[in-house]
Amino acid sequence: MLQTPWEYRYAHRTKSMGSSVIRELLKLTEQPDIISFAGGLPAPEVFPLEKFQEACNIVLRESGAQALQYSTTEGYRPLREMIARHTARYGIEVTADNVMITSGSQQALDFIGRLFVNRGDYIVVENPTYLGALQAWNAYGAQYVSVRSDEHGMIVDELEAALRVGPKFIYILPNFQNPTGTTLSLERRKQLVELADKYGVPIVEDDPYGQLRFEGEHLPSVVNVDSQYRGPNGGCYSGNVIYMSTFSKLLAPGLRLAWVIAPPEVTRKIVITKQAADLHTATFNQIVAYEVGKGGFLDEHVKVIRATYKERRDVMLETMAETFPSEVHWTHPEGGMFLWGILPEDMDAAEVLKVALEKKVAFVPGFPFHPNGGGKNTMRLNFSYSKPEDIREGITRLGTTLKELIAKR
Amino acid sequence: MLQTPWEYRYAHRTKSMGSSVIRELLKLTEQPDIISFAGGLPAPEVFPLEKFQEACNIVLRESGAQALQYSTTEGYRPLREMIARHTARYGIEVTADNVMITSGSQQALDFIGRLFVNRGDYIVVENPTYLGALQAWNAYGAQYVSVRSDEHGMIVDELEAALRVGPKFIYILPNFQNPTGTTLSLERRKQLVELADKYGVPIVEDDPYGQLRFEGEHLPSVVNVDSQYRGPNGGCYSGNVIYMSTFSKLLAPGLRLAWVIAPPEVTRKIVITKQAADLHTATFNQIVAYEVGKGGFLDEHVKVIRATYKERRDVMLETMAETFPSEVHWTHPEGGMFLWGILPEDMDAAEVLKVALEKKVAFVPGFPFHPNGGGKNTMRLNFSYSKPEDIREGITRLGTTLKELIAKR
Repeated sequence: MLQTPWEYRYAHRTKSMGSSVIRELLKLTEQPDIISFAGGLPAPEVFPLEKFQEACNIVLRESGAQALQYSTTEGYRPLREMIARHTARYGIEVTADNVMITSGSQQALDFIGRLFVNRGDYIVVENPTYLGALQAWNAYGAQYVSVRSDEHGMIVDELEAALRVGPKFIYILPNFQNPTGTTLSLERRKQLVELADKYGVPIVEDDPYGQLRFEGEHLPSVVNVDSQYRGPNGGCYSGNVIYMSTFSKLLAPGLRLAWVIAPPEVTRKIVITKQAADLHTATFNQIVAYEVGKGGFLDEHVKVIRATYKERRDVMLETMAETFPSEVHWTHPEGGMFLWGILPEDMDAAEVLKVALEKKVAFVPGFPFHPNGGGKNTMRLNFSYSKPEDIREGITRLGTTLKELIAKR
Repeated sequence: MLQTPWEYRYAHRTKSMGSSVIRELLKLTEQPDIISFAGGLPAPEVFPLEKFQEACNIVLRESGAQALQYSTTEGYRPLREMIARHTARYGIEVTADNVMITSGSQQALDFIGRLFVNRGDYIVVENPTYLGALQAWNAYGAQYVSVRSDEHGMIVDELEAALRVGPKFIYILPNFQNPTGTTLSLERRKQLVELADKYGVPIVEDDPYGQLRFEGEHLPSVVNVDSQYRGPNGGCYSGNVIYMSTFSKLLAPGLRLAWVIAPPEVTRKIVITKQAADLHTATFNQIVAYEVGKGGFLDEHVKVIRATYKERRDVMLETMAETFPSEVHWTHPEGGMFLWGILPEDMDAAEVLKVALEKKVAFVPGFPFHPNGGGKNTMRLNFSYSKPEDIREGITRLGTTLKELIAKR
């Protein structure tokens, strides 16, 4: 017998919910005294607390009644205009009508699933891809065509076969991808846009980390490449890309503020979806974010974040080079928050994690990022959250663990 | 031809989205110079700006890094404990494990739809009922069995027939209902709980206004009545009610903070739903709300709100008595934010609104609150937002309009 009458009413929907291996594993990584590379948290040391406090005070003093009241579903207009101006700097012509605010990028992923995905629909994804997107779209019964990736991102040569399956859209994280840390090359961005045009399949571009480049040249975003493209199907195929980004990595994830850029008719539909889902994103948070960002503060602040993350990535890469066994390989991200480890094919990263946890160090096994199975021998390491000395210590422990396990095989 | 490749991909889902009569009507009520009783906004004059500013400063000073970071999906534990303690005062034994935080009540309604409603499922509602709930559940293909209501809320004598349809759950707003302002009597609460037990149908209790009683005696909530009930089906049928309430009316809607109280196994499922939908509600807002509420401030603050709303309701009722034609009837709410007007049966409130807008006064026609049609001759009036002098002026204009229209028939 189930315990309450509710359970009979949702059992059909929650069968897959109960058994998340990754959820159980992640719980273990939250034990105290563990040096964890498992999460995806920004460094709390770079949160601009003073600037934020100043902004809260200004907003409550000057527009408190507005900031605490209900507001429009599409979001605070000055914030949307600021985002449009910021986007225009990179050569994409958008106005506030193209921009809507969501309660974090996860909500944008959810709304995209709600609006576009019918049970059984295919979505083309990189393999591996962002777990949060899979969780959002699994709820709508999505299936995935996964395209392999290498150190330059999705292997676009293999995309055409995937597009012939008739997918609803292509989902791509072109910059410092989660989980691999790799970046899609400019050549591949152009190929992607061309193939998407050829098959009439639109693209969802998820770009939370694009600003966090600490090495190499900035590459134009996919939406930018698309807007420049003049293809055989009637010229400029504008509006083929829904672009998303977030304040979580630039300012603070605890605000839950992200944005979507899309053709105005598409944002209008997402706005109606949002109206039924949560009315609007917190007014106060939007006005405070605008107050923090309006004087060009974010441009300066992002330099601090880049310097902090570069140091941590460098320490992680150096320590891996010193302590990891030669059988293990890893990516060298030019930005972002994650890197990706590849163990010998016969090893299981989940088993490695169990041993690592005994040594008080944690990471995320890579298999859940693979929607169609595989990836058991892979692992994701976050370098943004832990302090350099903890990274050195934690990676050393992990290197020792890996050496022992590889020697024992 | 549709304009972007996206539109072909959502057209099936958005056919019903485009044509919201109510949305178009509400846009008209937002013109400047209009005295609007159409919205559902709290009085901005009662927002505790200083208390809020103080709380923001304390939170950023003492736990800024935590407040700006990612946090758990179920919500900030001290806030959930505070809500559990508050609920326990009314005789319901709950702990933080029964409580989860949502981004406003609308999100709780959405999650309930997501978890429980399959296309074609029936939900029992009062007629009329809250429009936001209908919007949330329409997205999941719900149908409605509507039970008539009178000045004491749902006519529970007519509920049994509705329960025999085999609905997924009963949705009820027992206190100062939106849109009618009526309150379900204690006798009917008991009958409701008994009938729900008899047919094994659970209840969703939506209680945003329960604290805003300015006249008469507090009645135990349905979840409370249910927890006391010893029915024929094995005694205490605990867990049959999902209870929801919000900080939107007690503190500020711009924070987007509400809560759900349910059996722990049900909250766990809603938490997993939320994880895929938006990860968690803004950390900062939760910690600030806790800081504002922890010293008993809300108990004092709600008295200010009650006094303010009572004055506004009194002015509205008095002016209606003075200026409305005798053919029009209305409810006399003992709390909350709304009252309900009933015009002669052959009149259309949407037509009245058009004339009223010319006289710069607005309300919401009642038909959209009736999920199965009807209610053309009804209207909802909000008394919480406008200042007393504006209420007097606006209601006088509306009374004049109604007298003219009734004379012209």
